Amino acid sequence: MLNKSPDLNHLFHALADPARRAMVARLTLGPAPVSELARPLPMSLPSVMQHLAVLESAGLVSSHKVGRVRTCAVQAEALQLAEQWISATRRQWERRLAE
Amino acid sequence: MLNKSPDLNHLFHALADPARRAMVARLTLGPAPVSELARPLPMSLPSVMQHLAVLESAGLVSSHKVGRVRTCAVQAEALQLAEQWISATRRQWERRLAE
Repeated sequence: MLNKSPDLNHLFHALADPARRAMVARLTLGPAPVSELARPLPMSLPSVMQHLAVLESAGLVSSHKVGRVRTCAVQAEALQLAEQWISATRRQWERRLAE
Repeated sequence: MLNKSPDLNHLFHALADPARRAMVARLTLGPAPVSELARPLPMSLPSVMQHLAVLESAGLVSSHKVGRVRTCAVQAEALQLAEQWISATRRQWERRLAE
């Protein structure tokens, strides 16, 4: 009965933190090195890296390293998966209201 | 810089669990007593009550008690708030792709 989708669990968990949402929001403007993601955040670089690891394991962000620079990009398909669950659930509720 | 919206933090945290998502999905079909929410879930009633408390503190579910029966209802505005953050973020990313 339970939909144990690990994707949705990880996705919503990843979005439940303001620093991680800020990182995702920044990356919607285009790929960025970790140093740029970290700059506006009131935390140490290791903390930023931990948040990045949560975002990567949820599939929301990918990264690749060239030399010393790790560049991050948003993975919009993951955002879409979370959006789909919420909008399908909300639509079900609206259908019930319309009955 | 950080958008510390406690609403979004609580909302996404509440949605990060399959039992809580199942409870919300059931409630989109209409209000239900706690016993009915609990029936399909592979857990004890106290566990269900804990999940319910998380959903209520996130504003996703409201409940009221008449006699011994506590009836729960989904609060669609909260779902909408979470949906709005995700869809605005995804649209920003699409605008950037279209440039």
